[in-house]
Amino acid sequence: MINIGIIGVGRIGRVHGESISKYVKDARVKAIADPFLNDSSKAWAKAMGIEETYTDYKKILQDPDIQAVLICASTDQHSPLSIEALQAGKHVFCEKPIDHDVAKIKEVLDVVKKSGKKYQVGFNRRFDHNFKAIHDAVAAGRVGKQQIIKITSRDPEPPSIDYVKISGGIFLDMTIHDFDMVRYLSGSEVEEVYAEGSVTVDPAIGKAGDIDTAIITLKLANGATAVIDNCRAACYGYDQRAEVFGTEGCIAISNDSDSNAVFSGKNGVMAEKPMFFFLQRYMAAYAAEVDSFVEAIVKDTPTLVNANDGLAPVLIGLAAKKSVDEHRPVKIAEIRKQYNL
Amino acid sequence: MINIGIIGVGRIGRVHGESISKYVKDARVKAIADPFLNDSSKAWAKAMGIEETYTDYKKILQDPDIQAVLICASTDQHSPLSIEALQAGKHVFCEKPIDHDVAKIKEVLDVVKKSGKKYQVGFNRRFDHNFKAIHDAVAAGRVGKQQIIKITSRDPEPPSIDYVKISGGIFLDMTIHDFDMVRYLSGSEVEEVYAEGSVTVDPAIGKAGDIDTAIITLKLANGATAVIDNCRAACYGYDQRAEVFGTEGCIAISNDSDSNAVFSGKNGVMAEKPMFFFLQRYMAAYAAEVDSFVEAIVKDTPTLVNANDGLAPVLIGLAAKKSVDEHRPVKIAEIRKQYNL
Amino acid sequence: MINIGIIGVGRIGRVHGESISKYVKDARVKAIADPFLNDSSKAWAKAMGIEETYTDYKKILQDPDIQAVLICASTDQHSPLSIEALQAGKHVFCEKPIDHDVAKIKEVLDVVKKSGKKYQVGFNRRFDHNFKAIHDAVAAGRVGKQQIIKITSRDPEPPSIDYVKISGGIFLDMTIHDFDMVRYLSGSEVEEVYAEGSVTVDPAIGKAGDIDTAIITLKLANGATAVIDNCRAACYGYDQRAEVFGTEGCIAISNDSDSNAVFSGKNGVMAEKPMFFFLQRYMAAYAAEVDSFVEAIVKDTPTLVNANDGLAPVLIGLAAKKSVDEHRPVKIAEIRKQYNL
Amino acid sequence: MINIGIIGVGRIGRVHGESISKYVKDARVKAIADPFLNDSSKAWAKAMGIEETYTDYKKILQDPDIQAVLICASTDQHSPLSIEALQAGKHVFCEKPIDHDVAKIKEVLDVVKKSGKKYQVGFNRRFDHNFKAIHDAVAAGRVGKQQIIKITSRDPEPPSIDYVKISGGIFLDMTIHDFDMVRYLSGSEVEEVYAEGSVTVDPAIGKAGDIDTAIITLKLANGATAVIDNCRAACYGYDQRAEVFGTEGCIAISNDSDSNAVFSGKNGVMAEKPMFFFLQRYMAAYAAEVDSFVEAIVKDTPTLVNANDGLAPVLIGLAAKKSVDEHRPVKIAEIRKQYNL
Repeated sequence: MINIGIIGVGRIGRVHGESISKYVKDARVKAIADPFLNDSSKAWAKAMGIEETYTDYKKILQDPDIQAVLICASTDQHSPLSIEALQAGKHVFCEKPIDHDVAKIKEVLDVVKKSGKKYQVGFNRRFDHNFKAIHDAVAAGRVGKQQIIKITSRDPEPPSIDYVKISGGIFLDMTIHDFDMVRYLSGSEVEEVYAEGSVTVDPAIGKAGDIDTAIITLKLANGATAVIDNCRAACYGYDQRAEVFGTEGCIAISNDSDSNAVFSGKNGVMAEKPMFFFLQRYMAAYAAEVDSFVEAIVKDTPTLVNANDGLAPVLIGLAAKKSVDEHRPVKIAEIRKQYNL
Repeated sequence: MINIGIIGVGRIGRVHGESISKYVKDARVKAIADPFLNDSSKAWAKAMGIEETYTDYKKILQDPDIQAVLICASTDQHSPLSIEALQAGKHVFCEKPIDHDVAKIKEVLDVVKKSGKKYQVGFNRRFDHNFKAIHDAVAAGRVGKQQIIKITSRDPEPPSIDYVKISGGIFLDMTIHDFDMVRYLSGSEVEEVYAEGSVTVDPAIGKAGDIDTAIITLKLANGATAVIDNCRAACYGYDQRAEVFGTEGCIAISNDSDSNAVFSGKNGVMAEKPMFFFLQRYMAAYAAEVDSFVEAIVKDTPTLVNANDGLAPVLIGLAAKKSVDEHRPVKIAEIRKQYNL
Repeated sequence: MINIGIIGVGRIGRVHGESISKYVKDARVKAIADPFLNDSSKAWAKAMGIEETYTDYKKILQDPDIQAVLICASTDQHSPLSIEALQAGKHVFCEKPIDHDVAKIKEVLDVVKKSGKKYQVGFNRRFDHNFKAIHDAVAAGRVGKQQIIKITSRDPEPPSIDYVKISGGIFLDMTIHDFDMVRYLSGSEVEEVYAEGSVTVDPAIGKAGDIDTAIITLKLANGATAVIDNCRAACYGYDQRAEVFGTEGCIAISNDSDSNAVFSGKNGVMAEKPMFFFLQRYMAAYAAEVDSFVEAIVKDTPTLVNANDGLAPVLIGLAAKKSVDEHRPVKIAEIRKQYNL
Repeated sequence: MINIGIIGVGRIGRVHGESISKYVKDARVKAIADPFLNDSSKAWAKAMGIEETYTDYKKILQDPDIQAVLICASTDQHSPLSIEALQAGKHVFCEKPIDHDVAKIKEVLDVVKKSGKKYQVGFNRRFDHNFKAIHDAVAAGRVGKQQIIKITSRDPEPPSIDYVKISGGIFLDMTIHDFDMVRYLSGSEVEEVYAEGSVTVDPAIGKAGDIDTAIITLKLANGATAVIDNCRAACYGYDQRAEVFGTEGCIAISNDSDSNAVFSGKNGVMAEKPMFFFLQRYMAAYAAEVDSFVEAIVKDTPTLVNANDGLAPVLIGLAAKKSVDEHRPVKIAEIRKQYNL
């Protein structure tokens, strides 16, 4: 039985806490820590059977009975907490992204290496039943040599402008999941990026220095080309589709709905909208990723999303941003060179 | 080049005339005859390039250059015209049903036999791309040993009460196509029928002595059981589905629409309704059945829907009617005995 | 917090035990009892955090801290255990069917009434996301006046012949769920049944006195007609579809699969098979039904599947059996009269 | 009745000839001309009821009874024949592309303008039921303000290397239809192009100086971004999909198959492949485009695909080629300037 401490119990921290108590067999949450700990979070902890609640995360790092830590604090805390936890001898599961700053991510990678501890980044989509099905088929060679990869990723509604301002931009905040999916589905690395961005949802997003709509073309090391289309808003809900096309076939996934009921009436044949947003769509994936993390600890196997998987999509995101800014294709090698990687 | 005469140029006669002029390579319509010939039908004939228009169908039967006749007159004229045309040495394509009266159908069968001429009944669904696909798969053994056959057949709107009164009842007018489909898809004969009827669309249909909704269960000689569900009205359009389930699999067809466009919006994911009614849904099948009839003449091969295929579903329909009237399962053998078949 | 005792920890007992520990917030399993308690069941109990394990179910009934009992023993124990538990002052959740013997079910109903305790029967499909979606749409009037209800229910593989012999026959063992669905989806009562049965899967099932394939037509009090098609085997998996057709539209549900991935290749366009069987397909429904039972206790509201809902489908099943045996439609009133109901 | 002459009766010329004889009410083919006229083409003409067959196309241009000409000769003859026919006073339907050389297209545009005759380019997809459905919905404002347009266009198999060499390259030969679709579906003009090309199908295509796989991103005047993915080969058949996403919804079309039959078996749930290639998929569209051309003549209305619609996608194609060659986004204005447009 692995004892886990969760640092940060906002929305995603609670999702993980509840998942562990319900679905993860070999682990339990022993303690949580949050500087903004309040009655609501305490009541939640009690309902989940979590005994210890702290405002100071150091209490978790000092507890010798806690083997693993989930870092669910704000993004700017991800890298320092990762380092501190690893150095305290804990296995670390860190929400994405590790950081927006490549130097800091590099530092984390170095500490992970030295520590010999497990490190997993929270790219939950890898654990979704649909994305996993397409990944497994591609990995098994079912589509032959990959030629074209397509990902559609549209959110039902944009975040607040305040969030947009600290988000790191659409590529590091939203597309980062899609960059991870390109790497996951293809099993290959991105070599070059061309991104076309526009503001079609809300002019305020443009004023905040960001874009809300993007088409990103990626050249992969395996010879395939990938294309991602993103939008911060879609009136019909969370649109999460993917397709891998190759010499032996094409495998595609579409959206999930709450039920498959179809109503035929005077106005047409109507099915349900896709599930509203990530918490609905990927709830099972949140549980599966932590389960996989615990399994890696228990069996002493590599985590399925390692520290380098946390770095790679950030580099792609930075290349995409540069591509929009300079209106030209940008090689990942150029970004790596810039950061001495 | 086969010269064809069409007797009766109401709706279905014109459908056939237009089909022949457009799609049937080895035939042309030389003459039409209709006792109610008017300016509209003459203009139509001219547009179709049909030279001869008569009020008296005997002109067609007397024309030695006409090898084949399409009988598209009212149902009560189907059997006498069939006989007269066959005896005049013409090949005959007769709209369904041959007759509501078994004795008259029997008479036609006898004349067909003696005449040595081709005789085809207008069960157009056998020539529809979807029904043919399911038939061919079943005939090729793809579902293994048949176990359950299901047919859904619902009209978008009921006929007029005047028509209902002379229709011969739902089983001989509407379900007759589905009885034919059961025989066509299974390649087997119906042995027993149980029918449950109700009036859920329009009480006036009940007052006219008919039903408008039915579930019919049929036991087949090959050991399979078939079930048909019928309704005279469906607000979403013409519902034409079928499924054959067997030991090796299940093959099913669904409705066709004008386009496969799907709209995802605030209220859900909306596809188009099925095509409105039989003229839209089966237009290509009307052409294909006449093309097949002409081919049978040219190549001197059996027609794909012969006179017995015209008799069998009438017997099933009569059994279904008796089943509803006497509220019990009725064997086809009982009906055959009744008519000395 | 409701303390629950589970009597019988075979397959379904464990499904409920695990569901409660994972998903049911306001309850915990305090004890289990099974005459065949062994190391495996003890280990399972330990893993689930269940403290007390007995061979004698009376220990559960005598425990004043246990408010509710789940009866997951063999079918012949359902009614006596229900009565004993109710008389011991426990709320009872009983797996389906209450009994195959109407007299014994009646006895349970009487005891339920006198006891004032909650009683729920394990018709789990009412808690499935798809069936619930169709039910809610129908209940909200979306299809208008109901006309035709269709249910397809096919198992992936037949049970053992030993099980078939004690199963009570296909109608009480398998179709009973579909009879419940007809009542649930329609919100109406069945008045008459006509069933056509055959043996198409395994002659040994026929030798055991049962059938393995059936088409059942049901007349409902609300004027609609329902038709169920059943088979004990389907090579493509568990086939669970339903459709309600009415004057304002038709709402239908199809099968669920592990993922919605679709592969387009040389041989066609291939999707996944339906989920294998009931444990896969209805796992969430098993949790939801117990959650609903606990909620009924906590809030003191009626259970959503009461004792009468346990009786009604048994009466329909007996009528279906009689219909096959006597080859005629059978009214439910006739069965009720037979049992003085 | 419009008399038509067809110049060039290879594959596409015959498709049009047959379409006119079958489906186009107000026109007939009076004459055909082909320098390679042989027994096969004469037999075909006879079967179609076409009276006059020439090797010299000038015979058609000199016939005062012929009002309209279809130019179905090889691509290099499209522009000179267009000009000669227009100057001979004929309405002209010209297969796509008008030319690969912008100067020659410009010349045609000038002659069209002076002639006052109808001129239509053979972009048949505008007349396809699916593409028309999506166009009409977008034009009616159903998706609101357009944000992202996606087109997938993959051929089942590549053309011969000999053809590739004279094809003008993938962008002018294959993608040109997709460029037309972007303009047609959006109702807007393309302003900038970025194209990523690769050779994933056949190295011989690369050796011939062409690419066989491409992702093309297009910025539109209306603020939307479009993305096209192309491949010269897809083992599952002709892949023709499109999607327009906007503030009020997303409308998408998928492939057509010969039937909608679905087989559920041991290995999964299998539907038919898309129709094989353009002749199967767009047969009805070929008839509809000529019908529309004839209607424009008869009613003296503008053609639905005018000479400028023939020029615009060539400019986009040249920009795409330049983008691949110079590995940068290319503005259409840059191409226009280059050709003094």
